[in-house]
Amino acid sequence: MAGNTIGTEFRVTTWGESHGAAVGATVDGCPPNIPLTETDIQKEMDRRRPGRFSSASARNEKDRVEILSGVFEGKTTGTPISLLIRNVDADSAAYEELRDVFRPGHGDYSYFQKYGIRDHRGGGRASGRETAARVAAGAVARKVMAREGLRVLAFTRELGGIPARVISLDEVDKNHLFCPDPEAAAKMVEELARVKETGDSVGGIVEIRVQGCPPGLGEPVFDKMDADLAKALMSIGTVKAVEFGAGFEAARLQGSENNDPISRNGFLANRAGGILAGITTGEEIVIRVGCKPIASIRKEQETIDVSGNPRKISIGGRHDVSVIPRIIPVCEAMTCIILADHLLRRRTIEK
Amino acid sequence: MAGNTIGTEFRVTTWGESHGAAVGATVDGCPPNIPLTETDIQKEMDRRRPGRFSSASARNEKDRVEILSGVFEGKTTGTPISLLIRNVDADSAAYEELRDVFRPGHGDYSYFQKYGIRDHRGGGRASGRETAARVAAGAVARKVMAREGLRVLAFTRELGGIPARVISLDEVDKNHLFCPDPEAAAKMVEELARVKETGDSVGGIVEIRVQGCPPGLGEPVFDKMDADLAKALMSIGTVKAVEFGAGFEAARLQGSENNDPISRNGFLANRAGGILAGITTGEEIVIRVGCKPIASIRKEQETIDVSGNPRKISIGGRHDVSVIPRIIPVCEAMTCIILADHLLRRRTIEK
Amino acid sequence: MAGNTIGTEFRVTTWGESHGAAVGATVDGCPPNIPLTETDIQKEMDRRRPGRFSSASARNEKDRVEILSGVFEGKTTGTPISLLIRNVDADSAAYEELRDVFRPGHGDYSYFQKYGIRDHRGGGRASGRETAARVAAGAVARKVMAREGLRVLAFTRELGGIPARVISLDEVDKNHLFCPDPEAAAKMVEELARVKETGDSVGGIVEIRVQGCPPGLGEPVFDKMDADLAKALMSIGTVKAVEFGAGFEAARLQGSENNDPISRNGFLANRAGGILAGITTGEEIVIRVGCKPIASIRKEQETIDVSGNPRKISIGGRHDVSVIPRIIPVCEAMTCIILADHLLRRRTIEK
Amino acid sequence: MAGNTIGTEFRVTTWGESHGAAVGATVDGCPPNIPLTETDIQKEMDRRRPGRFSSASARNEKDRVEILSGVFEGKTTGTPISLLIRNVDADSAAYEELRDVFRPGHGDYSYFQKYGIRDHRGGGRASGRETAARVAAGAVARKVMAREGLRVLAFTRELGGIPARVISLDEVDKNHLFCPDPEAAAKMVEELARVKETGDSVGGIVEIRVQGCPPGLGEPVFDKMDADLAKALMSIGTVKAVEFGAGFEAARLQGSENNDPISRNGFLANRAGGILAGITTGEEIVIRVGCKPIASIRKEQETIDVSGNPRKISIGGRHDVSVIPRIIPVCEAMTCIILADHLLRRRTIEK
Repeated sequence: MAGNTIGTEFRVTTWGESHGAAVGATVDGCPPNIPLTETDIQKEMDRRRPGRFSSASARNEKDRVEILSGVFEGKTTGTPISLLIRNVDADSAAYEELRDVFRPGHGDYSYFQKYGIRDHRGGGRASGRETAARVAAGAVARKVMAREGLRVLAFTRELGGIPARVISLDEVDKNHLFCPDPEAAAKMVEELARVKETGDSVGGIVEIRVQGCPPGLGEPVFDKMDADLAKALMSIGTVKAVEFGAGFEAARLQGSENNDPISRNGFLANRAGGILAGITTGEEIVIRVGCKPIASIRKEQETIDVSGNPRKISIGGRHDVSVIPRIIPVCEAMTCIILADHLLRRRTIEK
Repeated sequence: MAGNTIGTEFRVTTWGESHGAAVGATVDGCPPNIPLTETDIQKEMDRRRPGRFSSASARNEKDRVEILSGVFEGKTTGTPISLLIRNVDADSAAYEELRDVFRPGHGDYSYFQKYGIRDHRGGGRASGRETAARVAAGAVARKVMAREGLRVLAFTRELGGIPARVISLDEVDKNHLFCPDPEAAAKMVEELARVKETGDSVGGIVEIRVQGCPPGLGEPVFDKMDADLAKALMSIGTVKAVEFGAGFEAARLQGSENNDPISRNGFLANRAGGILAGITTGEEIVIRVGCKPIASIRKEQETIDVSGNPRKISIGGRHDVSVIPRIIPVCEAMTCIILADHLLRRRTIEK
Repeated sequence: MAGNTIGTEFRVTTWGESHGAAVGATVDGCPPNIPLTETDIQKEMDRRRPGRFSSASARNEKDRVEILSGVFEGKTTGTPISLLIRNVDADSAAYEELRDVFRPGHGDYSYFQKYGIRDHRGGGRASGRETAARVAAGAVARKVMAREGLRVLAFTRELGGIPARVISLDEVDKNHLFCPDPEAAAKMVEELARVKETGDSVGGIVEIRVQGCPPGLGEPVFDKMDADLAKALMSIGTVKAVEFGAGFEAARLQGSENNDPISRNGFLANRAGGILAGITTGEEIVIRVGCKPIASIRKEQETIDVSGNPRKISIGGRHDVSVIPRIIPVCEAMTCIILADHLLRRRTIEK
Repeated sequence: MAGNTIGTEFRVTTWGESHGAAVGATVDGCPPNIPLTETDIQKEMDRRRPGRFSSASARNEKDRVEILSGVFEGKTTGTPISLLIRNVDADSAAYEELRDVFRPGHGDYSYFQKYGIRDHRGGGRASGRETAARVAAGAVARKVMAREGLRVLAFTRELGGIPARVISLDEVDKNHLFCPDPEAAAKMVEELARVKETGDSVGGIVEIRVQGCPPGLGEPVFDKMDADLAKALMSIGTVKAVEFGAGFEAARLQGSENNDPISRNGFLANRAGGILAGITTGEEIVIRVGCKPIASIRKEQETIDVSGNPRKISIGGRHDVSVIPRIIPVCEAMTCIILADHLLRRRTIEK
């Protein structure tokens, strides 16, 4: 079975290759009578758009989303919502020399091993371009969540080895790196410029917070809230690690330190990150994901071609130095999709 | 939609509460003509059985697995395999005083918020007892994998803050803590004894390795191999963090450091942990999971009861000090289930 | 992917072979806090039990259902409900001579072609015995439906070529053949006795009615109410035809005859059988299924063995002459499962 | 859970409303390296296109299919295939007067009851227009089937009460009604003309045959081949009845008449319609579906509006007199989708 669908009640299927005609998503299961316009979706698209910042790819997609179905007179109808984003600025010629070479750190080799055929242009299906469809679908999910008062916010927790403190979540939208720590943000900008010069790239850590989440979301024993979120976030190409609440640090605590005591007014600590036994507690959900550095670098690397011959490769083209900040709206989108899904899942057991 | 099924082709549904009549699993989609006996399964069950070590719970379940269907004359028939494990040593009386109290760090509060009813006895469905069914189903998955030469091995990477080096994987089965570093193992045993004395508990980190895995397993873009493994492992109650290959550390590397160069003889490094773009590369799969300390501790904690009244709680009964080593076979089982599933999934696109 | 699960929100997985240790079902997604006891289920089991009537098989299973999980203090908890029915009266020796022979009209040949292995004893997984698990799960579904006022009733519409009029649905439980027409029932009993004498068997038509069904159930465009019911009923081994409302007869009507006019008080006719565009209208759902005659007959038939050698076969053992009445509770169970599922599915789009 | 996806391995999601921007389908799970062009799909589209015959709707859609993804240099890549069909000739103004009225025999009433909102223009999602997406996806399925030698052919078995004999399947493509009996076809044409005059419509029976199907397809116990086909066909708006092989007639036969004897050279009869115990036998699959007359008629009918006021309605616009022949390619498409799906499903259990 192929794997291009996520969610059960709020179900998102994405399709499309980086240099094909378009990318898109179909959202099935969105409840009816929710106000939804292309502008609602465009707002989210614009946050992940390339070309906004110097650290980002020079590819200049307008990323215009067209709603093809499921909305009537400004409201969802309960039928599938088809979202279309044409690829208008794809420069495939630049990829011709990569047709037969496997780029290190990319899916070129593994895709070829799996399918015996691959659309080499710009990474094909494995391209970050596919995440445009996720962000579009996530914008719909956000509307479903917002009805019930949930808010999702992701931000930069670390970039190129530079950690950020959470000075204020209000800072997040004030800088290009979605960083809650202005001082750290300034250092990150410097580091990005420096690394760009060297033809290399950097990774980072994104933190995601969900506020206003009611208790009772998550489906034991396999579709736990943290399990589903971990899958959704790990399905983003760049993510190699996920943790909730105290995360890996919890492994070094004793039970008396890690357990969150409970009082009449709620939990006295939130080391669990808002989830106990896979079900939300009503506390803030706290997630961190580790993102690897972007694989496409100008620096020369060793690799092979499809015939197994050794090759040296230096990847030109329009590539970001860091997956942050563009990955931030994608992390939010995936989180929104899972939360919208579980909001709807919970309804089936309510009285 | 409830969430007690995992896998698509190799599909496992578990059921059962800690102090109900039994726990069990149904495995649907196991190919026919695979030799399978109760002994094959029992061998895995015995590895997770309580009561083997001083650090483990004193509850003494024989964990006898009965195969009720799907096997005929020692071979699988392609029909569902129903596995039954009776609960024979459940002492529910001890839980009577916990009927109305929410234990910190447990699912008591979140389950009650979700369902409005809960089987309080021994954690009910949220109990570690449920993992017995996972291990039984995992034993079937292991047979499916073994046919194609895959091996899964999990071991202790850290316990109570004491890290282990990977001296030799052969060491893993030689000590009670499944630790590849005999020196570290000795220190861990001491630490467990010390912590037990204090009425507290510890967490740890488990590393899982998959060897002999062919390239081409994993289904973009959502059911990537790492995404599905992350979900499966995160669905274990105690796990709060998952990472692949370099994991969180990759966030601090530059592209030129993190990319695995490719040669005629395979990858020259494996920082990707055997998975690129969600598809296996043929290299060893390397996963680490962070396990929180066991929530049930003798030390007094603050909490509330169902009416919201403050309560002090000290949890007696038979509880482990550390989730390690008993979690190790569970991590292996979940990994086996996902790999068996993806081995079968890949077949649908083969010529 | 194997196919032993039906339903999405109310999800039933059955397992078990006719002459294995047991048959059973796991019900996942049943809402919590519904009163449920083994007696509730047993009542339905007793309706399909063999050995009640002279026309039925002499195999005498007590069909005792054990609830292994998901119920606590007489109420469902929202966790999976595991139902176990031991096989206590299976006489496998009688099947030894059928080990290598394909019985005409049975699944022997097709199962062997598919799996390359089969449990020949009593039909294995393809046996009518598997329907015991369906009836048990259906009893849980009936409780879910009953909460919202839905009632399902199936009855004999035709048997051995003898049609029944719907004199009164109250008659249905008054005779052994679940027949709403006492006169026809008497003729059917005679016919069954006559056919039994000849060593042959008969088929029949079952009608199913659902009353109290609210409008709005069914999920376009593929999981329409009639589509899902058709699948569920066609999945019963004996069923070869399904129709709704006017059914095949609608093919001979003109639009003006077949359309149900609508008035302030509802529909003025119900030729649609309570379903329009796959969604219930609030009118009574009317379904008819055509059941083939039982394949196991004493009369000699031509067949082959696994080596392709011609064989004559006369099937002794304990077999019914007609699948009616035992199929009736099975038709009800499958209908209940689909309706319970769609009741829960609808909730996900409600405000 | 919404229901716009069918299939498990070969998975088709359709979207789109009759008078929205477009309709379309996403096909996930199509194996890689299958030659596929827009022309392959267009050929099937043209068979169902309106406006070809006098009995058909005057709406003149070109039904141009665009492949947006999943195909590279003329071959499938194993990634999702997105198919787009723009609505270019939708005349929504004509529907303005139907905005608040429920047309008898249509989904207007049931959709409104379910969703509380509906796109009234041309039937919205419930329109026959949605089947264009099914036919497009079915064309892909047909390519998957054809690789393994399977052929699907549907034809008119009865129209307006006029039965057709199966004189020769070669006749099917020689007349506009896909009728294997030229004489009957002539009478049907006359009947269609006559009924058109009266402002009424007719129904009919379609027969579907699958040739070249290997034994072993179909997944007991719920996803049996006949169960899945019944669902797929019943999900077509116009279909109210489905039967396999002898179908309802089997209910009137005795076991000795209905069982297909087996010989060294295969089955001596095929009353089972190519399926035993839900698994194909290798014989021809034979299915018949009963189609109701088209609900949109010029003749005046009684109905109500959304406020419950009685209304008289006479439906003008461009409507077919009979769902045949346009439903024929749709029946084929649904059959192809299910067969392609089961061809891939079977692979997961093969050695």
